[in-house]
Amino acid sequence: MRYYERNVNYYETDQMAVVHHSNYIRYFEEARVAFMDQVGYPYERLEREDILSPVIEVSCKYIHAIRFGDRIRIGVRLTKMSRVKCSFSYEITDAATGEIRARGKSEHGYVSRDGKPVAMNREHPDFYNAFLAELEPEDE
Amino acid sequence: MRYYERNVNYYETDQMAVVHHSNYIRYFEEARVAFMDQVGYPYERLEREDILSPVIEVSCKYIHAIRFGDRIRIGVRLTKMSRVKCSFSYEITDAATGEIRARGKSEHGYVSRDGKPVAMNREHPDFYNAFLAELEPEDE
Amino acid sequence: MRYYERNVNYYETDQMAVVHHSNYIRYFEEARVAFMDQVGYPYERLEREDILSPVIEVSCKYIHAIRFGDRIRIGVRLTKMSRVKCSFSYEITDAATGEIRARGKSEHGYVSRDGKPVAMNREHPDFYNAFLAELEPEDE
Amino acid sequence: MRYYERNVNYYETDQMAVVHHSNYIRYFEEARVAFMDQVGYPYERLEREDILSPVIEVSCKYIHAIRFGDRIRIGVRLTKMSRVKCSFSYEITDAATGEIRARGKSEHGYVSRDGKPVAMNREHPDFYNAFLAELEPEDE
Repeated sequence: MRYYERNVNYYETDQMAVVHHSNYIRYFEEARVAFMDQVGYPYERLEREDILSPVIEVSCKYIHAIRFGDRIRIGVRLTKMSRVKCSFSYEITDAATGEIRARGKSEHGYVSRDGKPVAMNREHPDFYNAFLAELEPEDE
Repeated sequence: MRYYERNVNYYETDQMAVVHHSNYIRYFEEARVAFMDQVGYPYERLEREDILSPVIEVSCKYIHAIRFGDRIRIGVRLTKMSRVKCSFSYEITDAATGEIRARGKSEHGYVSRDGKPVAMNREHPDFYNAFLAELEPEDE
Repeated sequence: MRYYERNVNYYETDQMAVVHHSNYIRYFEEARVAFMDQVGYPYERLEREDILSPVIEVSCKYIHAIRFGDRIRIGVRLTKMSRVKCSFSYEITDAATGEIRARGKSEHGYVSRDGKPVAMNREHPDFYNAFLAELEPEDE
Repeated sequence: MRYYERNVNYYETDQMAVVHHSNYIRYFEEARVAFMDQVGYPYERLEREDILSPVIEVSCKYIHAIRFGDRIRIGVRLTKMSRVKCSFSYEITDAATGEIRARGKSEHGYVSRDGKPVAMNREHPDFYNAFLAELEPEDE
């Protein structure tokens, strides 16, 4: 599990006076990007090497509202890794209190610019091995 | 199943030259709002009556990318309805070709402004009955 | 002046219970895209021809709040046109009442994919002439 | 001048492979919020005291594109302050190189929840004085 923290932005709230639920999906992406920075293989390097990583599936369970003025901490964990795909799970907590806010999952492919799956273990072994070292499978 | 159509906005794309995956969650919301307009119980009426409908869970499977210049059609279907919660499923297709783009689900509660669950059948029977008439359960 | 109408989305509101001011800039873009569709030279055609049109400057005066449940009408007018740049002005009104909501302006360049200005009158005369026919300069 | 830094998010890019211009307006808001935190009068405190601060006008000049992978630094400066309004100017630079990316301005009112202007010097002298101490008028 790697961690990423950030403040909530005013423009992320809606008229229910909480963070709009679509923004949690963006927070997950920020946490993935921070994960890759921490692992030493920044996402921008992947794109420079002409690998795209489209989202195949995403889900989020909203447990407790996040509000403007809150600081959140996002735990991100690589739960599956194959040659052409990977999965992450996420846990958003309040950075001050540690209380849970949301849990989520996502699945991602690795494709070339023309959309073909790329076998990362062969084509980008540095990336593949950096990720494998982070793998923490989940009990189902 | 009710339907809602719209064009894709330029600002919804990302540097992969496709609609960013978080925007699909927003498209689902637009489709729900259109559903409620069509059913005759607009979402703004619900909020005027001091009922909020927070999202409990959302998920999306991305099947084929959506691009700027596309027009999309979102099918939205009420799949579950209880006194205090409901669920929707969604299907995004290309409006021109009918090809599938994504499928999703969401679950929503009904709560008062102070966050307490509201028994909609008792407190807002007009709403409850309008929704019940739309119910199309899914085969699991 | 060309016109474009749309409903306000829930996710565009903030906790002040009005549309967040940054979204007006997105509404202006939607209106420009609709303008180009109406003029017969869709923006996606421009990009297919490898012309990008970055924003050089934008401004907005917020006159009256826009709320969820409102339908807005955006008047868009091409006010300046040179070989390498153009300017638009915008007027957002309530589609139901005609009351003014905001006014804005933007300036745009025309550049190739490697960022060099393109003389549209020479390189894309169809576009240039279609736009010239729309020109409505403003009294300063 | 106060300063605020942050990384660029992937979801803030568009298919031109740069940060979408509407997001600069959001960056300005983040910088204002950071300014108020630094000054010791957080924006959330203002709203808790039932003061809203709607945007009256905003403008931005885009000088050089911002890209995913960049870290930006936003200088924010209070340039005008009256009893019922204030103005800020902004300068976005690349945090690594110091190169200019954009310049902007915004004007804001102070109103009660029912939309009436509030004389901040009388009603919220702590806020008013904290802001006055930051005032750096611009040469026109």
